[in-house]
Order: sequence, then C-alpha cells, then structure tokens
Amino acid sequence: MSAYDYDLFVIGGGSGGVRAARRAAMLGKKVAIAEEYRFGGTCVIRGCVPKKLFVYASQFSEAWEDARGFGWNFGERRFDWSRLMANKDREIERLEGIYHANVQKTGAQILASRAVIEGQHEIRLLATDKVVTADKILIATGGRPNPFADLPGAEHCITSEEAFHLERLPGSVVILGGGYIAVEFANIFLGLGVQTTLVYRGQEILQGFDDDLRHGLHQAMEHKGMSVRCRDTLIKVVQKPDGRFEAHCESGDILDADEVMLAIGRKANTENLGCEKAGVELDARGGVVVDEYSRTTADNIFAIGDVTHRVQLTPVAIHEAMCFVETAFRDNPTRPDYDTIATAVFSQPEIGTVGLTEANAAKSFDEIEIYKATFKPLKNSLSGRDERTMIKLVVDAASRKVIGAHILGPDAGELSQVLGIAVKAGVTKDQFDSTMAVHPTMAEELVTMYEPSYRLRNGERIAA
Amino acid sequence: MSAYDYDLFVIGGGSGGVRAARRAAMLGKKVAIAEEYRFGGTCVIRGCVPKKLFVYASQFSEAWEDARGFGWNFGERRFDWSRLMANKDREIERLEGIYHANVQKTGAQILASRAVIEGQHEIRLLATDKVVTADKILIATGGRPNPFADLPGAEHCITSEEAFHLERLPGSVVILGGGYIAVEFANIFLGLGVQTTLVYRGQEILQGFDDDLRHGLHQAMEHKGMSVRCRDTLIKVVQKPDGRFEAHCESGDILDADEVMLAIGRKANTENLGCEKAGVELDARGGVVVDEYSRTTADNIFAIGDVTHRVQLTPVAIHEAMCFVETAFRDNPTRPDYDTIATAVFSQPEIGTVGLTEANAAKSFDEIEIYKATFKPLKNSLSGRDERTMIKLVVDAASRKVIGAHILGPDAGELSQVLGIAVKAGVTKDQFDSTMAVHPTMAEELVTMYEPSYRLRNGERIAA
Repeated sequence: MSAYDYDLFVIGGGSGGVRAARRAAMLGKKVAIAEEYRFGGTCVIRGCVPKKLFVYASQFSEAWEDARGFGWNFGERRFDWSRLMANKDREIERLEGIYHANVQKTGAQILASRAVIEGQHEIRLLATDKVVTADKILIATGGRPNPFADLPGAEHCITSEEAFHLERLPGSVVILGGGYIAVEFANIFLGLGVQTTLVYRGQEILQGFDDDLRHGLHQAMEHKGMSVRCRDTLIKVVQKPDGRFEAHCESGDILDADEVMLAIGRKANTENLGCEKAGVELDARGGVVVDEYSRTTADNIFAIGDVTHRVQLTPVAIHEAMCFVETAFRDNPTRPDYDTIATAVFSQPEIGTVGLTEANAAKSFDEIEIYKATFKPLKNSLSGRDERTMIKLVVDAASRKVIGAHILGPDAGELSQVLGIAVKAGVTKDQFDSTMAVHPTMAEELVTMYEPSYRLRNGERIAA
Repeated sequence: MSAYDYDLFVIGGGSGGVRAARRAAMLGKKVAIAEEYRFGGTCVIRGCVPKKLFVYASQFSEAWEDARGFGWNFGERRFDWSRLMANKDREIERLEGIYHANVQKTGAQILASRAVIEGQHEIRLLATDKVVTADKILIATGGRPNPFADLPGAEHCITSEEAFHLERLPGSVVILGGGYIAVEFANIFLGLGVQTTLVYRGQEILQGFDDDLRHGLHQAMEHKGMSVRCRDTLIKVVQKPDGRFEAHCESGDILDADEVMLAIGRKANTENLGCEKAGVELDARGGVVVDEYSRTTADNIFAIGDVTHRVQLTPVAIHEAMCFVETAFRDNPTRPDYDTIATAVFSQPEIGTVGLTEANAAKSFDEIEIYKATFKPLKNSLSGRDERTMIKLVVDAASRKVIGAHILGPDAGELSQVLGIAVKAGVTKDQFDSTMAVHPTMAEELVTMYEPSYRLRNGERIAA
C-alpha cells in the first residue's frame, strides 16, 4: 500500500499526458490526470487536427481551378467561414470526448482543474484548493505560441490559437514567422482567398529543412500570389481608426491588414507551475530540463512532450509517454528514439521529409550522392497548373544507404510516412532501384532515378 | 561489319520496344523500330495514361460533395465530355511526340510500318513491301482487349480501346468483367455520373488481390450507387430499335444500356506476325513463349512486354527491355526480377498493394500475423463521406518480415510505390513499429498497429 494518494499524477491532458495516464492505469497503477481546459491538448484542440481540417478546406480552391481542364464547368462558388468553423468545432468536441472516454475506461481519475506542484510529491488542485500526493509526477503541460510581448502593438495580433476561433475570415492577413506553423497558415489563408503576406527575418523560410524544399516552396507560394518577404520583420503593429491594422516593417514598408498573426516560435507552459518547489529545473527559455529518460532534476518527477523543448511533435510526445511508463513503472528503462523522424509541412504543395538534408549530410559524410527529379505531375497536364513536383534522395556513397528523402508535391506528407519506414530501416539506393515502378504515379520517380544528379565529396560539389 | 541491315530490329513502339531500341542504339548498335500506328503503345495511347486522366476527371465529383462540409457553396456544375476528350487527345499527342523524339535522338531508325517476320533474320515492312534483315529481332507488339467474339452481339460492344474515343458520354453502361480494367472503368463512369453496372461471373471482383481489398472495394462501389453483379455473366447483347442495347444476363435479367463494354482479359498481338516462319512458338492463347531471359524458341529472337503473357504492366515491360539489352548486347545475361511487384488499382477508393495476400501467405508460411486497421480518414469527418480506409499488413511470424501490405483508400497507389521499396527490401514489422508516426496522416496507421488482429498457423486462424 502506497503512502501517497496516487502512484502517478499527470499534469496535462494532451497527447502525451493522456497516453501516459492510460498506459500506467492499465498496468494497475492508481493514476490521476488533471486538465484545466479540454482534453486533447495542442494537437486536437488547437493544432494538428483543426489545422489539417483548415488545410482540406483551403485545398478545394485549386480543385475548382484544376477541374476545368478535365471537362467540368460550374457556377459561382462562395466560401462560408462560419460553416467551416461550426463543423470543425463539432469534430474537435467529438475527438475530445473520445480522449476523455479513453482515459475513463482505464480507470484513471480525471480531475477538471489546473494543477500546480507544491512539493516533490504534492500537487495542489486550484479548482478545489485541495492538495493531493503522488509517488511520481508527470509534467505534460505542453506549450503555447510565443506572444512576442516586446513587439509594440502585439496586443492587436493573433496567434494560431486565435486563428482557430476568428469570427470572420479576414480579407487580408500579415503573418510574421518562417517556421512550419507560419507557412501552413499562410497557405491556408491564401487557399481560402485571403490576400496573404508572410514576413520572416531569416534568409529563407523553413529553417532546418532541405534547401531545395525551402526554395521550391517559397517560389510556389509566390507563384500562387502570396507575398513572401524574407530578411524583414515587424517593428510595430498599429490599429487604424477603422479597426484594421498597419504592420510596420523594419524595411520601412507599411502593410495594411485585417489581421496580423504572430507565429514566431512556441514556449513551454511552465509559468506558475511550481517547478521550483520540487527542485525541477527549467532551461533559459522556460522548458523543463530532462535527462534522456525524460526524468527532471527531481528524481520522481518526469516531463514529456512540448514542455521539454525536445522535438515538438504529437507522435514524439506519445512515444515519450510510452517510454516513460516503461522506465517508471515496468522496471525497463527506455530512452525515446529521436533518430530519423519523418515530418510533413501541410503547405500547398506539401512537404514530406525524412533524414538528413543535403547540407547536413555533406558535413557528416565523406561523399554523398544527390538524386533529384523535378517534373510536372501528370494531373497538371490537363489542369494546366504550372507547378512542379520535386523528389530528392541523399545517399551515403560508402554504405549506399538513403540517408535523406525529400518531397515537395501533392501528398508528400503521406509519402514521407512510408519513406520514413524505409529510411529508418537503412534501405539502400540499390534496393530503391530494384523496386518495380507503379505506373502512373508521382512516387515512381523515387525508384527510377538511376544516375546521381551530382555528388559532394568533403562538402564540395563534384561532377556526377 | 555485320552481314545484316540491322543489329536489332524491334517490332512495336510501346514502352518495352522503345526502351530496348533506345538502349541498344545508345550502345552503338544499328537499330530499327517499326510501329504501324502511334508511338507509346498501350500505356500512352490507350491504357495507363488516358485512363489516369479519366480517373482524375471522375474524382472531382466527390470533391464537390466533400467541399460542402468544409464551408464551400457553388452553383450548378456540368461535365463536358468533349472538352475532356480534346484535352486528353492533345496530351497523348504530346507524349507520343516525346517518345518519338527520344527514339530519334539515339539514332535508331524509325519505320512507320507494320512489320512481319519472314524468317529468322528477315522482316517484311508492309508499308513498302520491302524485306530487311537483322541479327536480332525483338517482338514487342503488346496486346489488345479480348473481343469475346463468341458472345452473340459482341459487335455492338465496346472495349477499353473504344471507351477512349466515345463521341458522347453514355447515360448508362454495362461492363462485363471483374479485373482491374473493368473495375477502373466502372469507377470512372460512375464518377462522371453514368448509371453503371458491373457484371462478373466470378465470386468476387479482382481475383488475385487480397480478399479484404476485394470485398471492401466491392462494398464501397455499391455504396456509391454502382450495381455490382457477381456470379452472373452476359449471354447476348441485342441492339434495340432506338439504337440502345439490351444486355441479357445468364441469370435471366435484361439490362438496358447506352453502351456495353467488354473487359474480359487481353490477348497477345501475334496474329499474322509470321512467328511460325522463324520457329517462334506461341502458347495456347497466342502469347510468345520465352525463357527466363525473354528469348523465344528461335535463339536470335526475343520478346518482351504484354505479348509474352507474363506480368502485363508498363514498368515490367521496361524492366524486361533493360534486361534484354544486357543479355543480348552486353554479354551480361540478366533475368527480369518479378519478385514483389507493387501495383495499384485506380478505383475510388484506390487499391495499393504489394507482396502476398493473406490467403497466399497462409499457404506458404507456417505462421503469419495479420495487422488490420479500418478507419474513417480525418477528411471524412467534415465531408460527411461514409467511407472507410483499410490498411493491412501480412507478417511472417518466424522472420518478422512484412511480406504483404494492402491499402484501400485515398492515394493508395502512391503509397504502394513506397511500401514496395520497404517490402521488397525485407523490412520487418519491428522496423515498421520503430518508425515515428507523421501526424495527422492516413499512412501513420502503418506504423501504429502494435498488436496483431489475428494469426494463422498452418493456414488455420488462431487467436492473436
């Protein structure tokens, strides 16, 4: 019999917290999980899921354009933002209910309260002001958009959180940021007919992605009519008498917009969490410091997901949750595996990517081969869409392994999942080549690039 | 100096013949290629490519339906068959030109003539009635739909060839056949608003595919409004006074239709080809008999592609062409590799498949594990589309290798290409499981099925 109220107390009902609570409860542990708002976390409530629904909505614009060449005529079309919002809200509510029910089924206790740490084994529930005790505590409070409070006029701006709840679709939007959230929202707004400007201080959007993907997507977005302003930033946002906004750029330009959105990184939800009362250290940016087993500086307290500033992706948080339960409750210390994580950017066209970029591979390997194909997908022949798809493989010349695979084009996100299996498993270029093509598909280009486009030896480009 | 006019004479300008002619010419060989109609063969002129363009056209119907839930309203829509046909014809012409130019660039001689074999080294060009000689001959004449001449009224029916040239879109169609061509055309017609009936004498459509795919697609097609009549066939087709047709079924039912299409297999183009004059043997169905190096019973004559009744797919013909050139001109005898060929059926929903079906795996392996997920894709939450996606993995319990992967759902064709790489390379289920999910995608289900749905030991189903 434990001296504590619970074997495990989970703070935060997002993807990571919920998975950990369920798994521990299913092992017979006495578990509580506290969530102050809604179950599902960033992913379900204000991230991946509603974002993807918006992406679907915004993709229909291109379908209308493409249909003509295939013989279709249709009357005027009109987009009803409020219908999308209502349907999206209903779906989120449904998913939230599923999360809730899934936790309940395992016997974990659900506490509808904000929970803060009072000591190494004590947690205070603010809803009832009650203090409970637990043998182990899991911090899974996630993160939220950086409010960029230093920007004069930041209070006029929205972030992705508000974007999911706008009462009406803006006629024009200025988005500050160059990461995947900024890029995805810019493409959503553009697809829905909004005059869209992306402002980013860096040299090129999507830092960390392969340069060909970055340049290719940048060009595609501009080609569709988006204004992309790299090497610039906002210095203040001013509300005009008519309620609209002026976004003042460092370059001196002033951009008029119905909404200004800030998408310049996210910060961990650790404010007023009480970490200091239990000896849980935070990093300079407020993230919980953990070891490779997700253990904080307090040895009975663990942290997983976005609050730890590791890889901020839903499947990673879930994986960390599974590893945490193995480590903490099954006497099987398990390190999360961060090697070769495939990811997608749900832009238009999409990005799907796994493994090393060309630039990183060139630094880590003596000699690499680059296989690259840029082509117009068959569908675009009749749609008349002037957009090309790019497929790129990075191969280690010594081992012949495909160490990076990058796609810019339709369904690249789906394809990256399956490429992730092959690249993670260490499949070689010769094994790619020995695979029969599936015709006609876009993906067949992955197995029909027989000759390298070029090579890099010691980081220097040489002829193929 | 060769005693013959040519080192290689290729009969037939389809995918296989063109590839062989180009590769041999690039090696410095003196090559001629004869084509009586248009370059590109079945794939480009009357198969894969125009079919896929029709598929794209037919998919927009579901896009219109799905768009409403995402907030879109639009006026009446109308489909213009003649515009699709004109645009399709223009694209085929463009591709044909590319094929032609690609051959020309290599220096191979193009002969616009039907060519027939006169002897082991002699070929007659019917356009000029000239006889030329060649050291080696490659038969790459392909195949065409079986006309089913025994069916009374067959002369009233169309096949896939005529379907690509119909002057107007029929209001109703009856299709006889259950293979992928019948199924793809049935889905195309249905998507374009045609009242569609599929009649197939077998127990279930798509013989040879995994049973779950077959049943799942059958149900989905009926759910969309297609009439699918298995265990029935046509016994005669009668033209009515108004020009329309009556398709008389073995069951006694009479189906009214604007068009009746026969899609009951294909036959090799060997009639009047002169094979007997060179000692080239044919099989009972008229296909050219070849050994594992594509050599016919005449040792300087080879045959590749559909005319050989092996695997009738464009990429396979191309692969056979490459192997033929290695064998015949580079002193490097190379057998085509038919192991683990991924394929797609461009139905709605699509099928993508690679490796063994559950039934075949159960026969060949002592114990297999089946992992199966059936789910509603995220997009269908808002579209309201009542259609589920199925993903299924077949795993050899002993080696842990994934020996079959089957998908029924959107973009299954594209996904099968990449799954083909992994399955061909022998990736294990544990390697699938160690791959991080890409969220939210449909393909992530491939890496999150941790427990088998059931097992089969010695062909008998046992609990998981």
